[in-house]
Amino acid sequence: MNNMNDPKLFEEPCLKGLEKFEEFAQKAPYLRDNNLKHTRKIVESLEDAIRRSGLKDGGTISFHHGFREGDKVINMVVGVLAKMGFKNLTLAPSSLMSCNHPLIEHIKNGVITKIYTSGMRGKLAEAISNGLMENPINIHSHGGRVHLIQSGEINIDVAFLGVSCCDEFGNANGVSGKSRFGSMGYAMVDAQYAKCVVMLTEDFVPYPNNPASIRQDQVDYIVKVDQVGDPSKISVGAARMTRDPRELMIARYAADVIEHSGYFEQGFSLQTGSGASSVAATRFLEDRMRKKGITASFALGGITGNIVDLHQKGLIDKIIDTQSFDADAAESLRVNRNHMEVSTNCYANPSSKGASVDRMDVVILSALEIDLDFNVNVVTGSDGVMMGASGGHSDVAAAAKLSIVVGPLIRSRMPTILKKVTTRVTPGENIGVLVTDHGIAVNPNRPDVEERLRAAGLPVFTIEELHARSVAIAGEPTDVEFLDKIVGVIRYRDGTVIDVVRQVKPL
Amino acid sequence: MNNMNDPKLFEEPCLKGLEKFEEFAQKAPYLRDNNLKHTRKIVESLEDAIRRSGLKDGGTISFHHGFREGDKVINMVVGVLAKMGFKNLTLAPSSLMSCNHPLIEHIKNGVITKIYTSGMRGKLAEAISNGLMENPINIHSHGGRVHLIQSGEINIDVAFLGVSCCDEFGNANGVSGKSRFGSMGYAMVDAQYAKCVVMLTEDFVPYPNNPASIRQDQVDYIVKVDQVGDPSKISVGAARMTRDPRELMIARYAADVIEHSGYFEQGFSLQTGSGASSVAATRFLEDRMRKKGITASFALGGITGNIVDLHQKGLIDKIIDTQSFDADAAESLRVNRNHMEVSTNCYANPSSKGASVDRMDVVILSALEIDLDFNVNVVTGSDGVMMGASGGHSDVAAAAKLSIVVGPLIRSRMPTILKKVTTRVTPGENIGVLVTDHGIAVNPNRPDVEERLRAAGLPVFTIEELHARSVAIAGEPTDVEFLDKIVGVIRYRDGTVIDVVRQVKPL
Repeated sequence: MNNMNDPKLFEEPCLKGLEKFEEFAQKAPYLRDNNLKHTRKIVESLEDAIRRSGLKDGGTISFHHGFREGDKVINMVVGVLAKMGFKNLTLAPSSLMSCNHPLIEHIKNGVITKIYTSGMRGKLAEAISNGLMENPINIHSHGGRVHLIQSGEINIDVAFLGVSCCDEFGNANGVSGKSRFGSMGYAMVDAQYAKCVVMLTEDFVPYPNNPASIRQDQVDYIVKVDQVGDPSKISVGAARMTRDPRELMIARYAADVIEHSGYFEQGFSLQTGSGASSVAATRFLEDRMRKKGITASFALGGITGNIVDLHQKGLIDKIIDTQSFDADAAESLRVNRNHMEVSTNCYANPSSKGASVDRMDVVILSALEIDLDFNVNVVTGSDGVMMGASGGHSDVAAAAKLSIVVGPLIRSRMPTILKKVTTRVTPGENIGVLVTDHGIAVNPNRPDVEERLRAAGLPVFTIEELHARSVAIAGEPTDVEFLDKIVGVIRYRDGTVIDVVRQVKPL
Repeated sequence: MNNMNDPKLFEEPCLKGLEKFEEFAQKAPYLRDNNLKHTRKIVESLEDAIRRSGLKDGGTISFHHGFREGDKVINMVVGVLAKMGFKNLTLAPSSLMSCNHPLIEHIKNGVITKIYTSGMRGKLAEAISNGLMENPINIHSHGGRVHLIQSGEINIDVAFLGVSCCDEFGNANGVSGKSRFGSMGYAMVDAQYAKCVVMLTEDFVPYPNNPASIRQDQVDYIVKVDQVGDPSKISVGAARMTRDPRELMIARYAADVIEHSGYFEQGFSLQTGSGASSVAATRFLEDRMRKKGITASFALGGITGNIVDLHQKGLIDKIIDTQSFDADAAESLRVNRNHMEVSTNCYANPSSKGASVDRMDVVILSALEIDLDFNVNVVTGSDGVMMGASGGHSDVAAAAKLSIVVGPLIRSRMPTILKKVTTRVTPGENIGVLVTDHGIAVNPNRPDVEERLRAAGLPVFTIEELHARSVAIAGEPTDVEFLDKIVGVIRYRDGTVIDVVRQVKPL
């Protein structure tokens, strides 16, 4: 043992810049205090957590939207921040829902002055479409959000992550406790990149909680609250099988398209999302898979109970889940070993070292509008008001071998096919096939697919033909009128601007 | 849909600095090429992977030592780097073993000029102790390594991570394939922090491989090699129950100490490592746990089959595993849901947001030497030559409520207790109890523990009394003679210098 007090010792070149154990070793007091060690992260109140987080005016706060319409965290936290006098914050949740309308007040009061989100609905979306904010909101895809975080544009100061339960060190998952919601795919990204992570939990469980979707080495503070979310409001109502004959027809055509696409082979992969026609299409695929004797290697994405059903029947080998759309999916994540939970970086970020969408064969996507160039709008309604979310739409469309958009030719007397979409979210070059209740159109950039579908005897038209039929039935829609002010910027998954949304002109 | 070619559009202040979809969206060619997408990470040869990694002379390379003496990756990669003409590299594996003696040649040739490691053994350790390198090696603890990586001192350019199998995107674990070795706790840190991750795999499995201890979003290149390691050489020979009466006596005393320490309560936690006496002590604990009707909440650390055995018997609720010491531990990690795999950041890094060592009640540790101030040496032998590893020793000692060092009073005619240890690795203030075959000594800074052990009738002495007995039996050892040159710097877990190792004087 050397004499560490020898003044010559630290003059040695090899020790240059290094510190001596005696002087610097015990800087962190909690390391010496066993009682403090175990509970040092637990704070009395949300106010307390916010004070310790170091958040300042102008900072960026983030949230996950795993509870969808049942979320209780965003409104609660922003309400407390408003009471504490915070101003000029950037709100960067993975998405916003109708339930977030109380934010309108906090935007008016200057608490929130910038927003990044995958989408918005209801009163909040209407207010922002009508010019509520000075800065336009930025709408990103799920994968694109991670890209913006990694590039530093979204620089999260404090992530507030709601969980049904965790242990005293912050190990948490979304599959245990009362308010369980399933995959923590969004939150995993915030936990990794936020400067400070505040966990809001309904309950504590013994250490160590596992699986640890959010890990103890990612969590700074933990605060117990009454409720983080109402899981009964997660389900987008898709688990049931539709009885709508038009939706069933679309679903059957979509299953036909997959069967004859050229990708319906042993080990194919699929993503079907949560729309009624997609869910029904998945059911129709079951018979065809059995008939052909093939199984899928994996299903990806937002996961519903009907995908779980196929997994449990042995028809889908593995499930890669970044968001659980219903209680069946959440329960499956808990019990099925081959139901895997992944972050949105692993799911869909184009600048990630590996996004699962890049391994996708066929995906079924929805559309509010699609145009003659196959561009898709999933954000604004036919009145030009924002009402939806970008979600994983452009991510999977860009990456899958075949992207199939499904939708009725006419929806509530409004046509789905337009000459130009109101808002471009997903570029047409990435859409392979459009399936409607009046027939199928194939993107001219996929002659291989068109040939196979025609050979199978499917009702294939040009998109211009389907558009003409739609005009014949419902007439030519009148153009929406907009003011000049930009209220929304649509960011493509790589961060570029693919369109802007302008303020709607009052009627 | 707005006209994106309108020259005025990007003059809007809210679009300042943003790029237009049409010009910038398709920068990454693999995103457009489905064939390339799936296999873009797979390269033909290690040389190819190294060329693509961007490694330059003077760079830092890292490895995990999950295969311990069976590792085939470090020697292989450094051999190829030498052939390719690389010079002046910093080698930063989680640890080095006797099997790494071929590195001597590469140090002589200037391929490797700096080393960070938890330890060294055999010929390499002897050569470095005898002045082989110009720069001293830095010896860190397992937790301290993560601290040095996070602080930027170890700045990994390329991590070369060996796995028995992975999928084409790099999802990998240590529990499947032929050469499975168990927990990837070390590699998880390298995968997170290295600028480039090259995975060496013996085999490919279908996508998606799970569990993904190393994830697809952490891996840049994958190269198939014949063999990454020989798992039969992982076991440190500790799974068997010792029959050595001296070791059994130490083990029994250690179990007595734990039983009467004040921490032997329902839900206690323990770490026992892999020494013969520790393993035996764990076995003796089983009876005492049953008798008192208590179970442990978790066992931590390097995990052996005997901990797995207690887990399977229901006596240890969960296992937190950062390194599997034998095939039983690796198999348990594969099949037991409550056998959890954690990175060394979660295990032991003092500057992590949460290290499991901070929740530890009692730990059994080994020692090559301990001195009258309870300082412990686990790196240099009695001849002053480096021969061991820092490991998790100082990490757990600092954090656990009670640290128990076990060892024979005399080992191969050399005393374990010295006036001053040859090399200080773990500071005495963190050691609570020393257990030898001649009795027990309690650190004067733990009068509470001493009182309980004396009340239980255990053979408690002062450490000076045990030292005197050792001198009476084996005599006073002669001091090792050193030259001035510093050949090793012992870094405490927070990065500070706790001791240095000097070149041994030739006999």
